[in-house]
Amino acid sequence: MTSNRAIAYQGPGKVDVVDIDYPTYELKDGPGVNPDNVGRKLPHAAILKVVTTNICGSDQHMVRGRTTAPEGLVLGHEITGEVIETGPGVEFIQKGDLVSVPFNISCGRCSLCKKGRTEICLNVNPDRPGSAYGYVDMGGWVGGQAEYVLVPYADWNLLKFPDADRAMEKILDLTMLSDILPTGFHGAVTAGVGPGSSVYIAGAGPVGTAAAIGAQLLGAAVVIVADMNADRLANAAKHGCETIDVSQEDPREGIARILGREEVDAGVDAVGFEARGHGKGAGEAPATVLNTLMDVTRAGGDLGIPGLYVTGDPGGVDEAAQEGSLSLRLGLGWAKSLSFTTGQCPVMRYHRQLMEAILHDKVQIADAVNATAISLDDAPKGYAQFDAGIAKKYVIDPHGVTGKVEAL
Amino acid sequence: MTSNRAIAYQGPGKVDVVDIDYPTYELKDGPGVNPDNVGRKLPHAAILKVVTTNICGSDQHMVRGRTTAPEGLVLGHEITGEVIETGPGVEFIQKGDLVSVPFNISCGRCSLCKKGRTEICLNVNPDRPGSAYGYVDMGGWVGGQAEYVLVPYADWNLLKFPDADRAMEKILDLTMLSDILPTGFHGAVTAGVGPGSSVYIAGAGPVGTAAAIGAQLLGAAVVIVADMNADRLANAAKHGCETIDVSQEDPREGIARILGREEVDAGVDAVGFEARGHGKGAGEAPATVLNTLMDVTRAGGDLGIPGLYVTGDPGGVDEAAQEGSLSLRLGLGWAKSLSFTTGQCPVMRYHRQLMEAILHDKVQIADAVNATAISLDDAPKGYAQFDAGIAKKYVIDPHGVTGKVEAL
Amino acid sequence: MTSNRAIAYQGPGKVDVVDIDYPTYELKDGPGVNPDNVGRKLPHAAILKVVTTNICGSDQHMVRGRTTAPEGLVLGHEITGEVIETGPGVEFIQKGDLVSVPFNISCGRCSLCKKGRTEICLNVNPDRPGSAYGYVDMGGWVGGQAEYVLVPYADWNLLKFPDADRAMEKILDLTMLSDILPTGFHGAVTAGVGPGSSVYIAGAGPVGTAAAIGAQLLGAAVVIVADMNADRLANAAKHGCETIDVSQEDPREGIARILGREEVDAGVDAVGFEARGHGKGAGEAPATVLNTLMDVTRAGGDLGIPGLYVTGDPGGVDEAAQEGSLSLRLGLGWAKSLSFTTGQCPVMRYHRQLMEAILHDKVQIADAVNATAISLDDAPKGYAQFDAGIAKKYVIDPHGVTGKVEAL
Amino acid sequence: MTSNRAIAYQGPGKVDVVDIDYPTYELKDGPGVNPDNVGRKLPHAAILKVVTTNICGSDQHMVRGRTTAPEGLVLGHEITGEVIETGPGVEFIQKGDLVSVPFNISCGRCSLCKKGRTEICLNVNPDRPGSAYGYVDMGGWVGGQAEYVLVPYADWNLLKFPDADRAMEKILDLTMLSDILPTGFHGAVTAGVGPGSSVYIAGAGPVGTAAAIGAQLLGAAVVIVADMNADRLANAAKHGCETIDVSQEDPREGIARILGREEVDAGVDAVGFEARGHGKGAGEAPATVLNTLMDVTRAGGDLGIPGLYVTGDPGGVDEAAQEGSLSLRLGLGWAKSLSFTTGQCPVMRYHRQLMEAILHDKVQIADAVNATAISLDDAPKGYAQFDAGIAKKYVIDPHGVTGKVEAL
Repeated sequence: MTSNRAIAYQGPGKVDVVDIDYPTYELKDGPGVNPDNVGRKLPHAAILKVVTTNICGSDQHMVRGRTTAPEGLVLGHEITGEVIETGPGVEFIQKGDLVSVPFNISCGRCSLCKKGRTEICLNVNPDRPGSAYGYVDMGGWVGGQAEYVLVPYADWNLLKFPDADRAMEKILDLTMLSDILPTGFHGAVTAGVGPGSSVYIAGAGPVGTAAAIGAQLLGAAVVIVADMNADRLANAAKHGCETIDVSQEDPREGIARILGREEVDAGVDAVGFEARGHGKGAGEAPATVLNTLMDVTRAGGDLGIPGLYVTGDPGGVDEAAQEGSLSLRLGLGWAKSLSFTTGQCPVMRYHRQLMEAILHDKVQIADAVNATAISLDDAPKGYAQFDAGIAKKYVIDPHGVTGKVEAL
Repeated sequence: MTSNRAIAYQGPGKVDVVDIDYPTYELKDGPGVNPDNVGRKLPHAAILKVVTTNICGSDQHMVRGRTTAPEGLVLGHEITGEVIETGPGVEFIQKGDLVSVPFNISCGRCSLCKKGRTEICLNVNPDRPGSAYGYVDMGGWVGGQAEYVLVPYADWNLLKFPDADRAMEKILDLTMLSDILPTGFHGAVTAGVGPGSSVYIAGAGPVGTAAAIGAQLLGAAVVIVADMNADRLANAAKHGCETIDVSQEDPREGIARILGREEVDAGVDAVGFEARGHGKGAGEAPATVLNTLMDVTRAGGDLGIPGLYVTGDPGGVDEAAQEGSLSLRLGLGWAKSLSFTTGQCPVMRYHRQLMEAILHDKVQIADAVNATAISLDDAPKGYAQFDAGIAKKYVIDPHGVTGKVEAL
Repeated sequence: MTSNRAIAYQGPGKVDVVDIDYPTYELKDGPGVNPDNVGRKLPHAAILKVVTTNICGSDQHMVRGRTTAPEGLVLGHEITGEVIETGPGVEFIQKGDLVSVPFNISCGRCSLCKKGRTEICLNVNPDRPGSAYGYVDMGGWVGGQAEYVLVPYADWNLLKFPDADRAMEKILDLTMLSDILPTGFHGAVTAGVGPGSSVYIAGAGPVGTAAAIGAQLLGAAVVIVADMNADRLANAAKHGCETIDVSQEDPREGIARILGREEVDAGVDAVGFEARGHGKGAGEAPATVLNTLMDVTRAGGDLGIPGLYVTGDPGGVDEAAQEGSLSLRLGLGWAKSLSFTTGQCPVMRYHRQLMEAILHDKVQIADAVNATAISLDDAPKGYAQFDAGIAKKYVIDPHGVTGKVEAL
Repeated sequence: MTSNRAIAYQGPGKVDVVDIDYPTYELKDGPGVNPDNVGRKLPHAAILKVVTTNICGSDQHMVRGRTTAPEGLVLGHEITGEVIETGPGVEFIQKGDLVSVPFNISCGRCSLCKKGRTEICLNVNPDRPGSAYGYVDMGGWVGGQAEYVLVPYADWNLLKFPDADRAMEKILDLTMLSDILPTGFHGAVTAGVGPGSSVYIAGAGPVGTAAAIGAQLLGAAVVIVADMNADRLANAAKHGCETIDVSQEDPREGIARILGREEVDAGVDAVGFEARGHGKGAGEAPATVLNTLMDVTRAGGDLGIPGLYVTGDPGGVDEAAQEGSLSLRLGLGWAKSLSFTTGQCPVMRYHRQLMEAILHDKVQIADAVNATAISLDDAPKGYAQFDAGIAKKYVIDPHGVTGKVEAL
């Protein structure tokens, strides 16, 4: 039997390389697996040899101990791989296909999948609509930061790259199709960004950068990225963005400096619930980003909110935050007739068109986020550096097939 | 010179009939008039003999002293009238036209008007986008609970009824086109209500009822209205709605009783910032309605929020409320991928089509809200009764031309 | 082995009851089966005991010999049934479920299904995108005017009625969910019908009537139905529509008589390629309906075109018609900035919400189209009467389970 | 009194510089002025000193004698200018503003303007909805290929450039905002072009090139431009487009060569009714472009049709063409579920955002169409060269203020 190695959460601040089972066409019990999912038959699944699997900012919430993730949980929901076998119910996906896996798991049969709302599929997570690989409270699907991973409903979920060889040349771009590129793009789309728009993006991490790249692809005239991390801001500036260091400058003032007026057309929250206040040495203040966006977005604007907000946060700054409640200036938002779109990005809505954009050189997301390939064994180091704020996006290459692995 | 009588706010709990000037083609100083609007020339205006002008729930916020409205402010933003003269810049509207006036004042020249966002017109209120007649902080346009009123940008703002005689037969329906019918309808539209939908509408006052009627017009399968006022609920039930008395029954339980499942497809907030908590004897709790809507709306649903939230509320229950901040369970909303649309209804987007629906007997809004014509002199009594929760919508007929005036 | 009886096309003007095989989880060769579909494995399929299966106007095109349908083709694409067995790849649909079958067959795995464009699924018809049961050039899926029928991709395609007993009470309404109700509704939706609209619907047959009912559900103020068949027009009038007999009255004049102006907001083509000219004794003139719609729809209107146009029509009036070419007044349409939406209705986009509308008594489609249950043996008579223009919609009940069968 | 010189149509193949009256705030009689517009008062108008005014392909239809344009008609609907005086009803536009004029004239008061459908305004052309400067059958508004021009409804119609000096630096780009850039962009938008799309654009003239540039701004992955004019194709290729010479290569084969498949996602008709057939030496065949687009666009695609089709064409190839009727393969379009959007571009929907895109260097339209400034006196030569197919867009600078005039 083929062995399988993976990255697991082992308690706050701790991730390790562990041995796990090679996937089978049944969901077995394990850390974080929902009891109602144990024993679930998966004839519709494919097994992938993982080509690339990225470390995500949302993994960090678990690793920092800000969730109820159990020890031993195998991490990883940003997965690209080669199909090496398929279950008896798979008809179109074939062995040898090089594929991108949307981080949201969905069934392709329920009423919400039929509407394209794959981020809140009704059939994959017994607890609530919506699921993901390797994530707490998401049903217990084994994470993909591993050598091999199972993808259920393979004909539905997988996006096949039309030419595997050509795809391998752009693999560090294409690996971003599983999550951050669609997620950032969704933020820009739901913020109403279009040709000629100005947009303020809170957060210059990988999702914020992807939102910026997405806004540029949508034809935005001015893309402003705000953060407190000088390296990340410098990186954004290098890729055609205007920047505001919110530890130093008030957002409205920064916008006025850039645009000559104090408000933008559109706002994107690429930060989420672990937001900090603005100004020097500000502590955690979870409503900061949303209240800022209401302040700086012009009347009639839309806010795209791909940044994660949670229903429970054991490490929240107060009781309200621990329940996922935020003190929002809704009166201000209402007076400005703003709209708000929240939730996970339904990756499938965007990944095919973004793949075409990558393959035809319209998007250089790997370069924009400093995609850096590392080995599975270096993943724990990658987690630590990413948590420390390094302006890189780590892409684990478990089999060393990209030819681009750098040692950490 | 023609005399003019009107209803004015005279301090908390107090409204009176007062004498005011007959309108001229210039905005003159007076209670609540923005200094930057004083002296504004209005050659584009029409002067209307007011046929009907309704008392609105949002007037009550001022009358209760929950705003900074100055004494002497002439009230009234729900206006229907006959054009009796037009300024030199008016080309299409003519003397004798019977017209509905959108409560939002807009210029028809700015970038937001050009997009149909008349609720946040950039040119009518020096303080911020958006304006209305007879309302605090809205620029100082004189209210229409009067015998005569001026309407600026008449060619743009006014909706002419195609046949004045036929219109007078339905005047108690058509008078609702100036505000509550479009406003309720906008709530239903932005909540995504369509054929086959189930919708939960918080609030059984006139706007909530209009939202219910609007949802029915949009083809909703099940319209659920929630309130604590037994008379209003009984009225909603009479018009084809299911009802939940939230002083007696938990909303989720009520929905389960009605639908056999605990969530609806869509949610409408027709209450706004003066919301009370649920259960017997609950006090004011401004986030109650929005948090309930997030709880009872299914994943992927939309919330339409026509209920008014304000940037400042001197009577708010705590400091946060006084600034218009609410403690919202955004974590829950995010996990369910909800969207939120806030703000005034842009009446012009809807009033023509809703007029057609009324004229062709598809909507009986007057009956649904118990429209009751009263004289100008009875308006103060009407305010008091409406504030006490009577299940009626008072329509002031200052000249007694509807033939339907009832004494209070 | 269970026997199976069905309705087959046996040459121009001829349909018969024939014995056919009971379905198996493989697509076998037979009349009209595409060679590339022969032998296709169908583990994802369900086998249904047919409860109701309706005769459709589009079946008539074949029966009249206006297509290249081969003799022996089993007819029927409007199917409602009870699931009696499921293939090994079926997970959610279960034995005993009472279900509606969209007439378009789709895979639920291709890029167009993922966008909800199930009417042009890429994986079910080797010839071109899109497929249907029992129809020429649609891949060769066996028709459902039979005792038993196979439905591929059952988890994706089937709509389960939530309560089978309650559904059986409304079965003559629910049977219209497989085709005509969504198809007519799609015509109205793509014509831009909404609250307050006026709409002109060409054709008072079942699809035209369904478009009318759909327009009413969407809140239309005035629904005008045009035809030459007095019985069908009388029926439409009985259901709240205005009518124009185009053999007697010019469409613009009829509209002026009804509306007081010569144009409507929206136009629906519920006739298709076998259109006749207007006026007494007019012959076939395939562009008549579309040219009329361009004439009578106001500038900026939309045309919904659910009526079938074909790529080849051996019986076409001239060479152009035989190739599916029409002489259209596009100059006129362009000057009026019209838009046009063509193609099969993607049933799955609408059937769930329309089911809710039926179950909550918002739509009485059975009554509107005079749904009449008949036995399988009477189906040939039903075809003949329907072809002669009877104002009834025949619903075949092969097992006599509706309790409503009438003898012809 | 200020003199005024202009370009007038003087009969087939003939345009001249003529003296005309300086504008007044009243529409006076003259060649092509609709009798019902004569004497119309225009207090809402502004008078512009024309800065740039471009020769348009649609002017050529008149100049070639393919319309009923009367001799003496002053041409020109692509106008950019400086406001030198305003009527008494103008409130926001001010003397000195540098402005772009949408070629569609609209009132900003009618029901269609309120929906943003300015291309079919109901109040400016007594004959039919929609109007334009200097164009046959469009109401008789004097053309702008002149030293001075009047713009009615100035507050509504004019787009002010925020900084006149900065604007003059990009004047050859900004001058395209009056027509071709929005028109081409509208073609791309209504064809459904978005990130990752492939699009086939018929026509490499200025509008086709603008559609290509628009498609790139919208994020298209592959933009294919087809024409028979080698210079224009070479120009498109220089600006990032793939090209097909349809006099040499079949469109499907060309697409297959470029994309590896025979169909594109989206199609744009930037040719209109004077289309020629494909292949060497093909003559005029007005349905060629639309039938080709139906052929090469994938199932479910949209066709954007900004190319002009007319209701009457005295020079049409046959009787049908002379009435604006085309023999279209609608059966094919229907089978592929295509949609079609026709009509003039409502410039106001797009010009502001496209201005932002130009000012922020996201669009280089002047370079793409080889914008070439010429004097008013050289305009007749410009017409002749443009008619001969030169790959340049001529921009008349009547006062020599751009500093870029080249002699022809």
